[in-house]
Amino acid sequence: MILRLFPQEVNFFELFEQLAHYAASAAGDFKNIVTEGGINDAAIEKLVDIEHQADDVAHTIIDQLNKTFITPFDREDIHALTKELDDVIDMITAIANRLLVYKLTKTDANLVRFAGLIDEAAQALCRAVKGMHNLKKRHLVTEACVEINRLENAGDTMRDTVLAELFETEKDPIAVIKWKEIYQDAETVLDICEDVAHVVGSILVKQA
Amino acid sequence: MILRLFPQEVNFFELFEQLAHYAASAAGDFKNIVTEGGINDAAIEKLVDIEHQADDVAHTIIDQLNKTFITPFDREDIHALTKELDDVIDMITAIANRLLVYKLTKTDANLVRFAGLIDEAAQALCRAVKGMHNLKKRHLVTEACVEINRLENAGDTMRDTVLAELFETEKDPIAVIKWKEIYQDAETVLDICEDVAHVVGSILVKQA
Amino acid sequence: MILRLFPQEVNFFELFEQLAHYAASAAGDFKNIVTEGGINDAAIEKLVDIEHQADDVAHTIIDQLNKTFITPFDREDIHALTKELDDVIDMITAIANRLLVYKLTKTDANLVRFAGLIDEAAQALCRAVKGMHNLKKRHLVTEACVEINRLENAGDTMRDTVLAELFETEKDPIAVIKWKEIYQDAETVLDICEDVAHVVGSILVKQA
Repeated sequence: MILRLFPQEVNFFELFEQLAHYAASAAGDFKNIVTEGGINDAAIEKLVDIEHQADDVAHTIIDQLNKTFITPFDREDIHALTKELDDVIDMITAIANRLLVYKLTKTDANLVRFAGLIDEAAQALCRAVKGMHNLKKRHLVTEACVEINRLENAGDTMRDTVLAELFETEKDPIAVIKWKEIYQDAETVLDICEDVAHVVGSILVKQA
Repeated sequence: MILRLFPQEVNFFELFEQLAHYAASAAGDFKNIVTEGGINDAAIEKLVDIEHQADDVAHTIIDQLNKTFITPFDREDIHALTKELDDVIDMITAIANRLLVYKLTKTDANLVRFAGLIDEAAQALCRAVKGMHNLKKRHLVTEACVEINRLENAGDTMRDTVLAELFETEKDPIAVIKWKEIYQDAETVLDICEDVAHVVGSILVKQA
Repeated sequence: MILRLFPQEVNFFELFEQLAHYAASAAGDFKNIVTEGGINDAAIEKLVDIEHQADDVAHTIIDQLNKTFITPFDREDIHALTKELDDVIDMITAIANRLLVYKLTKTDANLVRFAGLIDEAAQALCRAVKGMHNLKKRHLVTEACVEINRLENAGDTMRDTVLAELFETEKDPIAVIKWKEIYQDAETVLDICEDVAHVVGSILVKQA
């Protein structure tokens, strides 16, 4: 195998921007679907499309990583960043799919709020990833990561409030089973966004 | 510590074949148990036996890895392959055990279908792992990995269908709680098989 | 970035001892809370305090790792050990928080037993981590790791017994949903303790 010596041949930063952009698209779509209560096969297909396009980019990153000798940052950070960004998209698609499988097609105010947080976090992810290849914009990256942490904390609090309310007011155990899973998974999306922020943060520290 | 320089002293390929063989044994046993509705303490004990033998092989791999300087493929891939193959077996045993704990001892047509997919995937894993140490058989490895991806997709669809049916027809919430977990865990076994296929695929790419 | 050449500048062993000590504090507090049925906002706040202090230590470890060239053991083991010890504390805090959210404020004999196992495991973790930087005390580390494995096995058996009993006796599906999650998460804490023991064990092997 010929290992490439010159990292400029592959623009990892550009590929990561693409991945982050797909995450933001998925989050935006999810917010719209959930707000309009418009979960249906077509909406899922659109998300699955984004998921596949993101998978292609993720495969390109890993393929190029295996063929490139010098990388702009640590190989394990490239692996982690690819996996976490991909996981954000997979998890959003999984939740949307579950809403359809569970026939939860009406608008739910709590889920709309979660989708809002997820949308904001995905946009902050884009800003963080975009800022990475411009050392002069480090402060923008840091600001975006701080914002993601804030949104994850807000998600934790929201999950506690929403679950307490669910157990308090919903007397149908089947509905409790469904919504408990949906809310917990929604909060998990924010956890994964925070994981991305941690990887980005650790890349910045090493480049300092 | 003396690091061994010559990889032929430890045959990692052989150890991985043993691990994959245990995964296939566990999957075959699980299929039989589930088809015959014969879940009982003896059946679990047999699976736990396989799990322990696989654990021994996994420990041997990691011990040898720590003592060997030159390995036939990347150290992190050896770690990942060992962990994922072990996880396949652990998860199968965990599901069988849960069936017993939840007293779900009757044959369930949906679980039989899942066990069939898992059995096919574990056999494909064996073919993939066996083909790895013979570069002339690369196409067999690729075919097996493609097959595992196909089975995982089939598992996703099956989980959606089966969960939709469960929520539609099962009115006892306790039964819903139990079967939902069993079906989701069965699909997770296929996810882990796909993770193994990804690791095998990435090892092949690097050796190209 | 200036990479430090001399590991003595950063005492990783001391930082790990601090982390393990926080895990033991969290486990001890959890045992007290659960035994006295005293779950309330103040109890959670105390655990969250420990979690934050532990997070600070974890961040220090990762920061120092990124700035240090020679480390007392493999970089990936430092990462894994930090993450797993942190996860022990996070999971204990999450369970306590969930008890409050689910309004499960009365003493539960089974949870008291789980908390006892977790407390013992966390104390064994402290002994294992403390023994790591003194090669003369290797046998103490090994003994502590064996003890953690024993406690994890006991936790597995306890989970099976407790879940079988829950499904047998609890007829309120909402209560089943809540307690099933609490018991499974309690067993997961013991799984993570075992993961720590595995990392410690593999560090010892490499230093042999």
